Amino acid sequence: DFMHALQHDCKPAFGSSKQELDKYLSSGILTWGESVSRVLQDGDMVISQIKTSDQTSLITMLLEGPPGAGKTALAAKIAQRSDLPFTKLCTPENMIGYTEPAKCQEIKKIFDDAYKSPISCIVMDDIERLLDYVNVGPRFSNLVLQALLVLLKKLPPKGHKLLIIGTTSRKDVLQDFDMLPLFKSIAHVSAVSTSEQLIHVLDSTDAFTDAELDLIKKKTSNKRLFIGIKTLLTTIEMSRQMDSGERGEKLVCLLEDLGAIEF
Amino acid sequence: DFMHALQHDCKPAFGSSKQELDKYLSSGILTWGESVSRVLQDGDMVISQIKTSDQTSLITMLLEGPPGAGKTALAAKIAQRSDLPFTKLCTPENMIGYTEPAKCQEIKKIFDDAYKSPISCIVMDDIERLLDYVNVGPRFSNLVLQALLVLLKKLPPKGHKLLIIGTTSRKDVLQDFDMLPLFKSIAHVSAVSTSEQLIHVLDSTDAFTDAELDLIKKKTSNKRLFIGIKTLLTTIEMSRQMDSGERGEKLVCLLEDLGAIEF
Amino acid sequence: DFMHALQHDCKPAFGSSKQELDKYLSSGILTWGESVSRVLQDGDMVISQIKTSDQTSLITMLLEGPPGAGKTALAAKIAQRSDLPFTKLCTPENMIGYTEPAKCQEIKKIFDDAYKSPISCIVMDDIERLLDYVNVGPRFSNLVLQALLVLLKKLPPKGHKLLIIGTTSRKDVLQDFDMLPLFKSIAHVSAVSTSEQLIHVLDSTDAFTDAELDLIKKKTSNKRLFIGIKTLLTTIEMSRQMDSGERGEKLVCLLEDLGAIEF
Amino acid sequence: DFMHALQHDCKPAFGSSKQELDKYLSSGILTWGESVSRVLQDGDMVISQIKTSDQTSLITMLLEGPPGAGKTALAAKIAQRSDLPFTKLCTPENMIGYTEPAKCQEIKKIFDDAYKSPISCIVMDDIERLLDYVNVGPRFSNLVLQALLVLLKKLPPKGHKLLIIGTTSRKDVLQDFDMLPLFKSIAHVSAVSTSEQLIHVLDSTDAFTDAELDLIKKKTSNKRLFIGIKTLLTTIEMSRQMDSGERGEKLVCLLEDLGAIEF
Amino acid sequence: DFMHALQHDCKPAFGSSKQELDKYLSSGILTWGESVSRVLQDGDMVISQIKTSDQTSLITMLLEGPPGAGKTALAAKIAQRSDLPFTKLCTPENMIGYTEPAKCQEIKKIFDDAYKSPISCIVMDDIERLLDYVNVGPRFSNLVLQALLVLLKKLPPKGHKLLIIGTTSRKDVLQDFDMLPLFKSIAHVSAVSTSEQLIHVLDSTDAFTDAELDLIKKKTSNKRLFIGIKTLLTTIEMSRQMDSGERGEKLVCLLEDLGAIEF
Amino acid sequence: DFMHALQHDCKPAFGSSKQELDKYLSSGILTWGESVSRVLQDGDMVISQIKTSDQTSLITMLLEGPPGAGKTALAAKIAQRSDLPFTKLCTPENMIGYTEPAKCQEIKKIFDDAYKSPISCIVMDDIERLLDYVNVGPRFSNLVLQALLVLLKKLPPKGHKLLIIGTTSRKDVLQDFDMLPLFKSIAHVSAVSTSEQLIHVLDSTDAFTDAELDLIKKKTSNKRLFIGIKTLLTTIEMSRQMDSGERGEKLVCLLEDLGAIEF
Ligand SMILES: Nc1ncnc2c1ncn2[C@@H]1O[C@H](COP(=O)(O)OP(=O)(O)OP(=O)(O)O)[C@@H](O)[C@H]1O
Ligand SMILES: Nc1ncnc2c1ncn2[C@@H]1O[C@H](COP(=O)(O)OP(=O)(O)OP(=O)(O)O)[C@@H](O)[C@H]1O
Ligand SMILES: Nc1ncnc2c1ncn2[C@@H]1O[C@H](COP(=O)(O)OP(=O)(O)OP(=O)(O)O)[C@@H](O)[C@H]1O
Ligand SMILES: Nc1ncnc2c1ncn2[C@@H]1O[C@H](COP(=O)(O)OP(=O)(O)OP(=O)(O)O)[C@@H](O)[C@H]1O
Ligand SMILES: Nc1ncnc2c1ncn2[C@@H]1O[C@H](COP(=O)(O)OP(=O)(O)OP(=O)(O)O)[C@@H](O)[C@H]1O
Ligand SMILES: Nc1ncnc2c1ncn2[C@@H]1O[C@H](COP(=O)(O)OP(=O)(O)OP(=O)(O)O)[C@@H](O)[C@H]1O
Ligand SMILES: [Mg+2]
Ligand SMILES: [Mg+2]
Ligand SMILES: [Mg+2]
Ligand SMILES: [Mg+2]
Ligand SMILES: [Mg+2]
Ligand SMILES: [Mg+2]
Repeated sequence: DFMHALQHDCKPAFGSSKQELDKYLSSGILTWGESVSRVLQDGDMVISQIKTSDQTSLITMLLEGPPGAGKTALAAKIAQRSDLPFTKLCTPENMIGYTEPAKCQEIKKIFDDAYKSPISCIVMDDIERLLDYVNVGPRFSNLVLQALLVLLKKLPPKGHKLLIIGTTSRKDVLQDFDMLPLFKSIAHVSAVSTSEQLIHVLDSTDAFTDAELDLIKKKTSNKRLFIGIKTLLTTIEMSRQMDSGERGEKLVCLLEDLGAIEF
Repeated sequence: DFMHALQHDCKPAFGSSKQELDKYLSSGILTWGESVSRVLQDGDMVISQIKTSDQTSLITMLLEGPPGAGKTALAAKIAQRSDLPFTKLCTPENMIGYTEPAKCQEIKKIFDDAYKSPISCIVMDDIERLLDYVNVGPRFSNLVLQALLVLLKKLPPKGHKLLIIGTTSRKDVLQDFDMLPLFKSIAHVSAVSTSEQLIHVLDSTDAFTDAELDLIKKKTSNKRLFIGIKTLLTTIEMSRQMDSGERGEKLVCLLEDLGAIEF
Repeated sequence: DFMHALQHDCKPAFGSSKQELDKYLSSGILTWGESVSRVLQDGDMVISQIKTSDQTSLITMLLEGPPGAGKTALAAKIAQRSDLPFTKLCTPENMIGYTEPAKCQEIKKIFDDAYKSPISCIVMDDIERLLDYVNVGPRFSNLVLQALLVLLKKLPPKGHKLLIIGTTSRKDVLQDFDMLPLFKSIAHVSAVSTSEQLIHVLDSTDAFTDAELDLIKKKTSNKRLFIGIKTLLTTIEMSRQMDSGERGEKLVCLLEDLGAIEF
Repeated sequence: DFMHALQHDCKPAFGSSKQELDKYLSSGILTWGESVSRVLQDGDMVISQIKTSDQTSLITMLLEGPPGAGKTALAAKIAQRSDLPFTKLCTPENMIGYTEPAKCQEIKKIFDDAYKSPISCIVMDDIERLLDYVNVGPRFSNLVLQALLVLLKKLPPKGHKLLIIGTTSRKDVLQDFDMLPLFKSIAHVSAVSTSEQLIHVLDSTDAFTDAELDLIKKKTSNKRLFIGIKTLLTTIEMSRQMDSGERGEKLVCLLEDLGAIEF
Repeated sequence: DFMHALQHDCKPAFGSSKQELDKYLSSGILTWGESVSRVLQDGDMVISQIKTSDQTSLITMLLEGPPGAGKTALAAKIAQRSDLPFTKLCTPENMIGYTEPAKCQEIKKIFDDAYKSPISCIVMDDIERLLDYVNVGPRFSNLVLQALLVLLKKLPPKGHKLLIIGTTSRKDVLQDFDMLPLFKSIAHVSAVSTSEQLIHVLDSTDAFTDAELDLIKKKTSNKRLFIGIKTLLTTIEMSRQMDSGERGEKLVCLLEDLGAIEF
Repeated sequence: DFMHALQHDCKPAFGSSKQELDKYLSSGILTWGESVSRVLQDGDMVISQIKTSDQTSLITMLLEGPPGAGKTALAAKIAQRSDLPFTKLCTPENMIGYTEPAKCQEIKKIFDDAYKSPISCIVMDDIERLLDYVNVGPRFSNLVLQALLVLLKKLPPKGHKLLIIGTTSRKDVLQDFDMLPLFKSIAHVSAVSTSEQLIHVLDSTDAFTDAELDLIKKKTSNKRLFIGIKTLLTTIEMSRQMDSGERGEKLVCLLEDLGAIEF
């Protein structure tokens, strides 16, 4: 009956995955460099377009970058800033061990729910994982791939609007799958790559003494770095296991083990 | 009983997918160039033949061209102009996540319904997607492929007529699948490729000032362009996010990012 | 009981697929060249042998030639001329979307029915399609292939006789599948390949004026042609959409588009 | 209960597939050459051994040779001469369209039945077909293959004896499958290969006049021939469709078409 | 209840597969050479270790050698000599036509039963067959392979001991599967390879006269032989079909056909 | 109801797999070299971090090294030392013969249980076996792989913490699967590789006399060794089957057979 339909169909429009998104933002977003602000600005652009343009009923954005660069957190942040009433997370974390058809149904359900709201946002995290992709073979779920290839260009029903924000660390794979042209806006999420950016991040934690920071500065200045913000925060936390005073040396040591400092 | 059969069998003959087709025509058809009219004329030819020729009970037409070139909209337009009472859309958008046998049954049902009407039209959109095709492997649904290879040449029952309009952006793949010779008429849907054509499209929107149009003209004249009408309309909408006056520059910028302007 | 068995087992002996075969003969058989008569004569040979030879309980014939050359029509014609009481059509058109086992069962049933009649004929149309064959891979149904490899050499029960007429446009594929040696008689169905043959066909339609025929003669004489009779009849029908007088030019034009005229 | 078990278990011991084997011997065995007698002698050897040797509870024999060489007929003949009470035919003709597990169960059942009789014979016809083998790929049923690899060396229960006679035209494939060493006796079934052998066969039919035989002799003497007895008998039957007097020429003609006469 | 559990769990501890093992020892073990005793000694070693060492709860032994070399018989002999109360045969002969999961369950059950007895022995015959291995492809059951890779190193429950004796003629395949290092003791089962060893075997049968033995000696002395004991015993039995006096010549002849005598 | 939930959800928090882990520690941990202590220290680091750091809710550690090097025992030891209330073993030994989906569900269940406890530890043993990996092909379970790729980076629910300790002898395979970067701490488990280390192990057993130890020292000093501790302990136990006095020679002999002593 009507009441049931109302409850069932409209509930998703309230609250939706907003709390779930918070989880990916627990460490906040440090603006350690210009590239961070640029991604957020690009996000603001697409939000504004989906909200205001009459001609636009579907807009798709992709955040791509190396593992641990902060793609999921930035996608969550943009979705949060959009403040759209129905925001839904489509993530492999909720589909562990699903068969291909089950995965497809789950994804389809998320879109069907979104189509019911006048204006919605879907965060599609870790697309290569949704596709069960692995380089060996390569192997992947063609059933899910085909579903995504259709869903990423299917217009919502008349009078409805949809913003899709995807993330991936395998832009090359999405290219091979003819999926890249389906994203109308593509933003690169960079790794931390200069000594200044590194120090900016370290400063914002209370883990290191000034002497330690000086040491790190000396050992990294004029060198190219390459480390995702997530990996960097983990490494800082590891150094913190050392007694104060020894943490600077430890951090440099761990970064070298990771191959994050150019020689 | 008879009444049931009547209702069940004849209903499809009325209305059918006509409203659904409208969805793909929401932005209308701009005749930005000669190639647009040629495709529509070719469409008129096949419509006339299926309607008048006694020897013709099946006619098949393919619209092929690059992604976003306007294939689906033109197929919908031709179907609409045919004004055939039973017109049905066979699109991957209605088969998301279907297993291969389910997809096959759905397609077969559309044809079986069409065979019941004295004269019908089927728009078969995005054939490479119906086939679950992906270059990697390559992988595809052989079950669907074999069904299409038969359906595209099977004559309707005596006294019945059928017009099939297919679309694809992978003519090469259809060639590999021995499917191309099954289309008796093949029309190429072109991308916008000259500065004049571009300006024609821009003019027809109210997005740009004369000064902006002049700027765009200057930056693109005597250059080869390559951009599908769908992609172009999206790009215009993006530029519109800028304040008036800055949109011309933005458009050229976005076109360059897309690799749509020859250097 | 006996009555049931009689009805069930003997019904196929009457009528069988004869009407269905007519469908493939709607445009008749034009004897546009010597190769047409030769195929029909070969057919008469095998019919006579299956009917008269005591040592022959199974005979198999293959009609092979390019797409649209008239293979199905000629197989239907030969079956019709055989005037055998039980004649059955085994065609992919009746098995669209069947799974491999379902296809196998269907084929097996046709043979089991045939074995019940003292003397039967099976037309096995488009063998590469029965096998779900596609070059890409290549992929095919091994289940169906193995069934055919057995059925094409299995003798009918004592006192029963069977004539099998197959068609294919992929003789090469049947060779790879070790299926070719199982056909005791192999006839090639040719494409129309000389100007005289072309004019013979055009003459037999009322589509062209004498002036048009002269034009066509001039444009094609001393050139090699290559076009199947089915494709040719379709092309004629397309030309007929033009006003009388313009059809000759149109036909030549269409033939050139098809690559049917040597340069 | 006991009576049931008796009936159920012992019935196979009487009659078994003997009538079925007759079907493959309808044209009799012509001893057109020494190689025919040699195969029959080899068969007598293994029959004698399985019957008399205390140390032998399992013996396996393979007849291999080109398509149509008479393998099945000779295997049936040997089984018939063995006069063993339980003789069973294991042939792909009885397993058309079976899934791999169904095929396996059928084969296993034949062996289980044989193990119940004190002394049994199994004719395993067309092994490459039992294996669903095709060169393309290659593809085959590994389930059936593994079953055969075990069954061909598994000893029957204490006090029971088993003779297995296999046939194949793909000795090379059986080699690849490590199946060849499991056959303790391997006999080659030859094609007819000299003019004398050919005339011997023709003489034994009443199809040709003396003049025709002379002609054939002249055209084939001192040439290498290569034609299986089955194919040869079919070809003779085809020639018989001609009027007497023209059959000799026709036969030579057909043999040349088949590539059966060396140039 | 307890009584049921006792009966159900303990029954396997008595008798187990001992009678079944006898079947593989029907022709006894001839000590035709030093290599035979060495394998039996190696077997005695592992039996002693599993029985006496406190630190050893699992021991694994592999008998590998060419087809027909006597691997199964020697494994059965060693198991018999171990005189362990629970001895179980895990052989493909008992799993014909099983699907991969059924095979896995059967194998797992054998191990689970063994784990219930304080000390057990499992003979795992023809491992490449348990794995459904075939060179073509290659193809094999990964489900069974993974089960074996775990079972061959999984320690029995506290206070329980297990001896596993495997056989294979495809040591190379087990190597590719990383299975070889899981066998702590590996014994090579040799083929008969000298004239003296051959005569030793022939002597132990009553098939040949002294004159025949002399002939064989002369024809084989100073030559390398290569024939498994099982194949040799079969060959002797075949020769026995000849009249006394002709058997020596026949044997040499058959050995040459088998390629068992170096030229 | 609440009581049920309490019992059901909280039970795993007590005891968990601790007894099961003991099984892998039955021979204790000999600190035969510096590399042993280093691994244990690394373990202490991650335990301390998971317990104390507010920023760390998930930590992952990998023990990798050659077969038999002691990976499982060391992982069990570290888990034991962590003294975390909920410690769970995820091992292929408990999933023998499971289908891929069953394996996935089992693994998922272990994680879901762990997420319920405020702080948990999962030992994931023999990851290449969990993945059903085999070099031939290669073949593996992509379903399990994808589950692990997600589970190894999925954060536990707010307020919960998880330590994952994995083991593998195929670091190269985990690299190919993009799994390596998911382990934040990677420790190498070494083989015994010097004479001194060997003697240290031998000394700790009571198997050898002083004379024997001297002999072994002489035969191995200044040579590179390569033998995992597990394999070494097995080899010692084998030597012990010899009478005292002969064991030293035997041990050296066995080590040479294993290729454990450099020449
Ligand atoms: N500027 C920033 N951008 C993104 N994340 C940031 C930033 N500053 C701090 N963070 C924190 O860094 C972490 C980024 O992790 P996140 O999971 O988003 O990375 P990811 O690129 O998605 O990793 P993966 O490739 O494994 O999916 C989050 O905890 C986030 O709160
Ligand atoms: N001349 C035109 N031809 C086609 N479409 C046009 C034309 N003028 C305007 N349009 C609009 O452009 C859009 C074309 O999009 P359409 O989906 O048809 O492209 P497509 O080639 O099918 O894309 P895809 O390759 O993604 O399937 C439609 O919104 C249509 O209304
Ligand atoms: N001489 C002829 N031989 C065959 N068909 C003829 C001939 N003359 C006229 N026709 C007509 O030409 C058409 C031949 O089509 P048909 O379906 O038999 O071709 P086909 O070779 O089977 O095509 P396909 O390769 O697509 O299966 C039929 O409509 C038939 O009536
Ligand atoms: N000497 C002979 N050996 C075998 N068959 C003979 C001989 N003489 C006559 N025949 C007849 O020849 C035919 C041989 O056919 P058969 O089916 O045995 O050949 P095949 O080698 O098994 O063929 P395929 O390779 O197709 O299985 C039978 O009809 C048989 O009666
Ligand atoms: N010294 C011996 N070693 C092994 N078997 C012997 C010996 N002496 C006689 N035999 C007999 O030889 C036969 C050996 O056959 P067995 O099945 O064990 O060989 P196999 O190597 O397992 O063969 P396959 O490779 O086919 O599995 C048995 O019948 C056995 O009784
Ligand atoms: N220092 C040590 N490190 C690890 N194990 C030790 C050590 N000292 C003694 N051991 C004993 O050695 C054995 C190591 O076996 P374990 O199963 O852990 O090896 P593994 O590397 O996991 O082997 P696999 O590669 O087969 O999985 C255990 O019995 C353990 O008690
Ligand atoms: Mg992420
Ligand atoms: Mg489209
Ligand atoms: Mg046809
Ligand atoms: Mg045969
Ligand atoms: Mg064996
Ligand atoms: Mg281990």
